[in-house]
Amino acid sequence: MIKMKPFFNVITPNQLLAHIKDFPCVDCEKISIDHCMGRVIAEDIVAMENIPSFRRSTMDGYAVKASSTFGASESNPAFFFIKENIGMGEVPQKKIGLQEVSKIATGGMLPEGADSVVMIEYTDMIDDTTIELYKSVAPLQHVIDIGEDMKKGSCQCQKGEVIRPQDMGALAALGINTVTVYQKPKVAIISTGDEIVPIDQQPAHGQIRDINRYTLFGQVLQNDGIPTFIGHVPDDKKALKKACSKAIQMSDMIIISGGSSVGMRDFTIDVIQSFEHARILAHGISIQPGKPTILASLEKTMLWGLPGHVTSAMIVFNTLVRPFLRHIAGETAPPFYAQQFIQARLTRNIASGQGREEYVRVRLEKTPSEILAFPIQGKSGLIRTMVQADGIVVVPENSEGLDEGICVDVLLY
Amino acid sequence: MIKMKPFFNVITPNQLLAHIKDFPCVDCEKISIDHCMGRVIAEDIVAMENIPSFRRSTMDGYAVKASSTFGASESNPAFFFIKENIGMGEVPQKKIGLQEVSKIATGGMLPEGADSVVMIEYTDMIDDTTIELYKSVAPLQHVIDIGEDMKKGSCQCQKGEVIRPQDMGALAALGINTVTVYQKPKVAIISTGDEIVPIDQQPAHGQIRDINRYTLFGQVLQNDGIPTFIGHVPDDKKALKKACSKAIQMSDMIIISGGSSVGMRDFTIDVIQSFEHARILAHGISIQPGKPTILASLEKTMLWGLPGHVTSAMIVFNTLVRPFLRHIAGETAPPFYAQQFIQARLTRNIASGQGREEYVRVRLEKTPSEILAFPIQGKSGLIRTMVQADGIVVVPENSEGLDEGICVDVLLY
Repeated sequence: MIKMKPFFNVITPNQLLAHIKDFPCVDCEKISIDHCMGRVIAEDIVAMENIPSFRRSTMDGYAVKASSTFGASESNPAFFFIKENIGMGEVPQKKIGLQEVSKIATGGMLPEGADSVVMIEYTDMIDDTTIELYKSVAPLQHVIDIGEDMKKGSCQCQKGEVIRPQDMGALAALGINTVTVYQKPKVAIISTGDEIVPIDQQPAHGQIRDINRYTLFGQVLQNDGIPTFIGHVPDDKKALKKACSKAIQMSDMIIISGGSSVGMRDFTIDVIQSFEHARILAHGISIQPGKPTILASLEKTMLWGLPGHVTSAMIVFNTLVRPFLRHIAGETAPPFYAQQFIQARLTRNIASGQGREEYVRVRLEKTPSEILAFPIQGKSGLIRTMVQADGIVVVPENSEGLDEGICVDVLLY
Repeated sequence: MIKMKPFFNVITPNQLLAHIKDFPCVDCEKISIDHCMGRVIAEDIVAMENIPSFRRSTMDGYAVKASSTFGASESNPAFFFIKENIGMGEVPQKKIGLQEVSKIATGGMLPEGADSVVMIEYTDMIDDTTIELYKSVAPLQHVIDIGEDMKKGSCQCQKGEVIRPQDMGALAALGINTVTVYQKPKVAIISTGDEIVPIDQQPAHGQIRDINRYTLFGQVLQNDGIPTFIGHVPDDKKALKKACSKAIQMSDMIIISGGSSVGMRDFTIDVIQSFEHARILAHGISIQPGKPTILASLEKTMLWGLPGHVTSAMIVFNTLVRPFLRHIAGETAPPFYAQQFIQARLTRNIASGQGREEYVRVRLEKTPSEILAFPIQGKSGLIRTMVQADGIVVVPENSEGLDEGICVDVLLY
C-alpha cells in the first residue's frame, strides 16, 4: 500500500499570490504595429511631436478670426470675403485678415490668421467671393488646436498595459510602426495518470480520455500564453522527470495535471526535488477544490502541479495560475474589457466549511434588471458542471456560507 | 462649391439592427480540437456514449457495497476482507460480496458488486487482508455513476456557442478531435481621404497619418474577424470603386472609413449604387457621434461607410458594426466572460440633446465597493480621449441626459 506523503507546505491563496514577485517577466521582442493587438507593451510610448501638428477644422465651414465675427447674428449678419478654398490635405496659401474667410472642410488645415471655424449652416453665399455670416464664434471653436490631441512629451501608453485598438490608433497617430512588447509566455502542459488515454484512442474499461490537456490548453490560450503539449506520462517517476527536463528547456511555465492518484503526487514532489535549485513554494493550498496544488520554481521556470479532476484543475488555473501567468507576461493591469468579475444575485444559499476558501460553480442568467447566479451541483470531477457554468463564486475562508439574495462577485469562465 | 447630398435614409440604431437578419452567416470548416478555442461551433455536440462509461471513485479508499456498511461507526467498526488492489486504469478482476472491499484510488473503476467508496480516513488496516471501517456510506457515495457526467444522447454544446476551455474539455471527454466551426469573417478595410498618409510617411503640413486603419484593424481582431487592409484611396470615385471591387472578392464585410469630407460621403453612396444588386439600408443614423454612417449590401457582402473621425468610427464599430460581425460569424450568444457591459456609478451629470442616442466616453475607476465612471471631455476627433476611455455610456434617444450618482451600463472598450 502506498502511503501518501503529508502536505508539507499548506498555505492560503494570499500567501501563494505573494510568490508572484519571485518570478521574472519574460523577454521582450520588437514587432510590427500590425501584430500588436492584445500584446503587453514593454515600453512607455511618449509623443515625440504635437498631434495634430496644425490647427484642424472639425466642421465643414469657413475659417475665420473669431474676433471679427463678434456681434454677427440673424438680424445683423456680417459680410466676409472668401480668400480661397482649402482642400483636404492642402496647405492654405492665403492669410486671413479681418472680414476675410477661407472655405474649409472637416479635417482641413486652418490658414494663418484664422483661429476658428464658422459652420456652413450659419452662412449664405452672396456671390462667388462673398458670404454673409449669422453667428459669432469663439476662438478655437470647431478647431482642434496644435497638440490638443497629444502634447509633445506626454505619455500615451505605459509599459505593462495591454494594447487595445485605440492604443494601436495612438501609435499610428505618432507614426510608430514597430513596438516593443513582452513575448508571450510559453507554457508546457504534461498530463499524468495510468488511467488516461489520448482522445483518439478508445478507452478500455477503467480508462478515461485526457481532458485536462485540452482544458488547460484552452485556458493558456485564453490568457495569451503559448501552450505546448509535452505529452502524457504514466505514473512513473522516470517518465515524469524526462518530460519535465524537456519542458524546462522550452517553457516559462510547466503545468503538470493529474497525480489524482496518491503515488503520483509524491512522484511530482520527488521529481521537483531532483532538479538542482528547485524550490517548493507550496504543497497544499487551503482551497476547495484544489487543495493538492503544488507550486515550485526550477531556476527561472515556474512549475505547477494541478489536481487531476478537470474542474479542480480549471478552477485552480483561473484563480491561482492565471495571476502568475499574467505577471510573467509583463501585464501590470488588465484592461477593463478583460475584467474577470461580474456582480450577480445568488438564487439560493451556499453552505461552506470554514478554514478554506471554497469555489462554487454558478450559471448566470440575465434579467432586464440584474444578473442571477444559480449554484450548480455536481461532483468536482464532472466536466459537465463546468460546461454549464459561466463562472465561480468564492466563499471566503472564514465564512460559513453565502445567503440567498445577496450580491456576489462572479469570476467568469 | 460641393453641395452635400442629403441623408436619404436616416434610421434609429434599433431599425439598423433589424437588418442583421438580412445577412447570411459565413461558411463552415472542420478543424482540429487543438485550434478550436474561441471559435464559434457550427454543430450541436451530442454525447454518443455515457461519460464515464464505468463507475469511478472520487476518493482514495475502498470500494464496497453500501448496504454492508450500514451500522458501522467509531464505537462499532465493521470488518471487511480486501479482495484486490485496483490500480489506475485497471479493470477490477474480482466481484465484491458482503463484508468484502477492494482498495481503490481516486479515478479508479469500481468492481462488480460495489456501489460506493469508503474514504481511507475512515478505515484502519488490521492486517494485509483485513480492514476495519468506522463509517457507513450511502449508495453512490464518492462515486461518479455511469453517465453521471454526460448521458448518452444529451447535447453538450450548441451550434452558435463560442468554444471555451471547458467546451474543449467536453469534446475531449467524448473523443471528438475535429469539430465543425464557422470560418472567421473576412473584413476588408479601406481608408479614404486626401489628407491621409500612411504612418511610415512624414505628413506634410495639412496632412495626418492614417489612424482608422489601425483602430479598425484592432477592433476586427478583437471580435475574431480576419482584417485585411485593402489600401488607402484618395477622394476619388474611380479609386474607391476599384478598391471596393477588390474587397468584394475577398471579404464578407467591407469597412470604408473616412469620407470626413463632404465629397467623399457622396462618392461612397455613388460607388455603392454603381454595383449591381446594391441596396443602401442606412444612410444616416440617429446617433451622436456617428450620424453619417452608411450600411449597404452588395449581394452577400456587407458594406459599412464609417465616419472619418477616429473616435466616431470606433464607437460606431463597437455599437453597430460589432453585432453584425458577430452575427455573420455564426455567434448566437456571447459567453459571459466576453460580456461587454459593466455597471458603474456616474461621477457627474451628462447633458444630451434629444432625438438621438448619444455615446459618452468614460474612464472607470475601481473602488473597494463599486466602479466609478468619469465622463471624458474632448472633441470626437481626438484619439487621446479613446485611449483614456475604458468604455462608453449610452444616453438614450429620448433622454435629456444622465444624473450624477446613478448607476449606468458601460459598454467596455
